[in-house]
Amino acid sequence: MRNFTFQNTTKLIFGRGTIAKLAQEIPAHARLLLAFGGGSVKRNGVYDQVVAALKGREWVEFWGIEPNPRVETLRKAVALGKEHDVDFVLAVGGGSVADATKLIASSIRSALDPWDLVLNENKLGEILPFATVMTLPATGSEMNRGAVISNDATGEKFAFYSRYPEFSILDPETTFSLPDEQIAYGICDTFVHVMEQYMTTTGQSPLMDRWAEGVLQTLIEVAPRIRADKHNYDAMADYMLSATMGLNGFIALGVSQDWATHMIGHELTALEGISHGQTLAIILPALLRVLRDQKQDKLVQYGERVWGIVEGSPAERAKTAIERTEEFFRSLGLATRLCELGVGEKTVEEIVRRFSSRGTVLGEGRNVDAEKVAEVLRLCRS
Amino acid sequence: MRNFTFQNTTKLIFGRGTIAKLAQEIPAHARLLLAFGGGSVKRNGVYDQVVAALKGREWVEFWGIEPNPRVETLRKAVALGKEHDVDFVLAVGGGSVADATKLIASSIRSALDPWDLVLNENKLGEILPFATVMTLPATGSEMNRGAVISNDATGEKFAFYSRYPEFSILDPETTFSLPDEQIAYGICDTFVHVMEQYMTTTGQSPLMDRWAEGVLQTLIEVAPRIRADKHNYDAMADYMLSATMGLNGFIALGVSQDWATHMIGHELTALEGISHGQTLAIILPALLRVLRDQKQDKLVQYGERVWGIVEGSPAERAKTAIERTEEFFRSLGLATRLCELGVGEKTVEEIVRRFSSRGTVLGEGRNVDAEKVAEVLRLCRS
Repeated sequence: MRNFTFQNTTKLIFGRGTIAKLAQEIPAHARLLLAFGGGSVKRNGVYDQVVAALKGREWVEFWGIEPNPRVETLRKAVALGKEHDVDFVLAVGGGSVADATKLIASSIRSALDPWDLVLNENKLGEILPFATVMTLPATGSEMNRGAVISNDATGEKFAFYSRYPEFSILDPETTFSLPDEQIAYGICDTFVHVMEQYMTTTGQSPLMDRWAEGVLQTLIEVAPRIRADKHNYDAMADYMLSATMGLNGFIALGVSQDWATHMIGHELTALEGISHGQTLAIILPALLRVLRDQKQDKLVQYGERVWGIVEGSPAERAKTAIERTEEFFRSLGLATRLCELGVGEKTVEEIVRRFSSRGTVLGEGRNVDAEKVAEVLRLCRS
Repeated sequence: MRNFTFQNTTKLIFGRGTIAKLAQEIPAHARLLLAFGGGSVKRNGVYDQVVAALKGREWVEFWGIEPNPRVETLRKAVALGKEHDVDFVLAVGGGSVADATKLIASSIRSALDPWDLVLNENKLGEILPFATVMTLPATGSEMNRGAVISNDATGEKFAFYSRYPEFSILDPETTFSLPDEQIAYGICDTFVHVMEQYMTTTGQSPLMDRWAEGVLQTLIEVAPRIRADKHNYDAMADYMLSATMGLNGFIALGVSQDWATHMIGHELTALEGISHGQTLAIILPALLRVLRDQKQDKLVQYGERVWGIVEGSPAERAKTAIERTEEFFRSLGLATRLCELGVGEKTVEEIVRRFSSRGTVLGEGRNVDAEKVAEVLRLCRS
C-alpha cells in the first residue's frame, strides 16, 4: 500500500425530508448566494422546499448553470456574488451546479478571472464556504474538492480543485423526477469513477479493492430496480449513496488511479457536446480492450468478483469482463460506440492532436499517450 | 435506508515514516501533553521518532495509561495537564491511550471530575484539540469520537463520546513489534466492530453490506499472512486500515447496529480483567447462536458472501456461518469459551444481575434483556 493523507470534512445529511435542515446548517447571518441550474428544481418542488427551509433569511439567486458549466456563465454568477458581498454559496441541483459553485465560491473574493484560477490553482486565495442540496447522484461533487469547468471560447474542459463543501443534503426523493437518460448517465458516471480508482493493478490494497467492487456490485444490483421503478426509494437511496462514496476518497486510500477514460471523455464533451456519462460508456470498454494485457490480472479479479466469471483462460476471462461491462452500459440505454452518436474521424483527429500537442500521458502506468488515445478512439468508432 | 447525518473530520496520515510529519500537523505554539501507555513505545523506537519529530517543541509527558484505561489514572493526567496549562494532547500508543486522551482532553478545561463527564456527556464544555500516533490497530479510536473508560472503584466500564482527533498518524511499521496476542485481540476486535454494524437485518443498504463484508473478507485474508510474518508490511497495512475503517462510521451509514456483544464483553473485562478482544471472541458466537432465528437471513448472506457457504437449508447455513466465525477466532489463537479462562457461574450471575438491575435491553431489535444475556453467557461457558 502507498502512503497517503486523507481528510474529508463534508457533513453528509441524507434521507427523506432533510432539506428542512438547511436553516440550522447555514450560519445565521450569512449573506447567501443560491446557485441553480435550468429550472427543474422549480418543477419538482425542491426550490419550494429550499425557500421554506430558509424562511426569514435573505439571499440572491443565480439561475442558468448549464450541464458542463461554462466559465462564461460563472463569471456572471461571480459578479452577482461580488455585487451583493455574499459570504456563503449554496448549490441546489446536480453535479454541474455543485462544480460551478466551487469555482464561484473561489472567485468572489478574488481579483482574478475565474478561468485564471482554473488554470492556476496556486493563485487561489480566500474561498467562501459553500454547501449543496444535491438532486442528481453522479459526480460525487457533493463530498469532494473537485470540479470540472468548460471554456466555450477555447473549447477546453479542465478539472479544478477547491475546498470541501461544508455540508451536503441528499434526499433521494428529489431524484424521483429525473429523466431516464440522466439516471443512466449518472449510474455510468459513478461506475466509471469507481473503475478509474480500481482498474489498475492487483494487490495494492485488498480492502480498497473490496470496497470498490462493493460499489460496482451495488450499482449493478440497483440499476434494474431503478429502471423498473424510479420511485423505489431504497434503490435510489443506495444509488445516491454509491455516487457519493464513489468519489469522496473513501475507495482510493493508498492505491494508484487511472482516469484516462475521463480525460478522453472530457474532450468528446468539449468538442461534440456529448453528455459526460455517455462519453464514459463509449471510452471505457475501448480503453480496457487496448490495455487488456497490462490490466489483465485486475480484469480477471474484477470479472470473478463483480460478474462471477470463473471459466476460461485469464485472457478469455478478461475479455468477457470487458464485454459484460459494455453490456451493462447498454442495459442502461447508453450508446457504447461513437458511430451511434455520429462522431467521425475529424473529431478523433482533433482529440489526438490535442493530446499530442499537450504531451499528456494518462493512466496509472503513465503510458496512455496520444498514440494510445488514437487506438482507443478508433476502436470505439464502430 | 434510514436517514443519517455523517461527518468525520479526522485527518488520516498513513504509511511508512509518517511520524516525521508530526511537527507540521501540531500548531506551532501548542503547549503539549504527550500521553503514553506502559513503555513499549520506548522499546520499539516510536518514542524516539516522536521526540525527533518534535525537536524544538516543549511538552510534558504522562506515562502509565493501562489497557482498559481507568479513570483513577486519567485524573492524574488531567491534573498534570491543568498544572502546565496545556492546550493540545497527543496520544502515542494503542486504542487505550487514544481513548484515555479523549477523556483527558475533555477534562483539562473542566471543573468537573472526569467520571462525571463520562456519566453526563451533556456536561461537556471546552474540549482541547488532540491527535494520535497509533501503534496498535484495533479500536478505531484514531478516527472516531468514542472511548471506553473503566472505573476501578465501581467496577464499571462505560462508553464516552468526545470529539474527533485532529489527525492520526498510522505507520504500519510501528506494529511489527506487537506481541502475537495483541495482534489476535486487535483482529478480533476489528472483526466484531464490523459485525456489530452488519449482523442485524438484510436489505437496509446493499452498499453498506458490501463494505462491511469487504472489511471482514480482508481480515480473513490478511490474518494468516500476519501470523506467518508480522513484518509483512502490506498485510499489516491492510489490517491497520481495516481497523480504522471498521469503526469510523464509513460502514454504518443509514443502517441499524447491534453492539450487544461489546456490552456483555465490557462486563467480563470489568469483572475478570479479560482483554477486550478476547471477551468478544467468546461472546459473539454464543450471541449469534441465541439469536440465530432472528438474524437468520443476515447470517445466510454473511455465510455465502464472506465464507462461501452455499449448501444446506437456511438454518444449516446460518449454523455453519457461526461455526466458521468461531473457528476463525480460534485460528487467531483465542479462546472461545469461558471455561478456558476459568470464568465460572459467580461472574455470570453478577453480569446478569447488573443487566437486570439496569434494565438494559441490547441489540438492534432491543430484545437482548438480562434473560437473553444469561442464555448467551451460559452457552459460552463450556
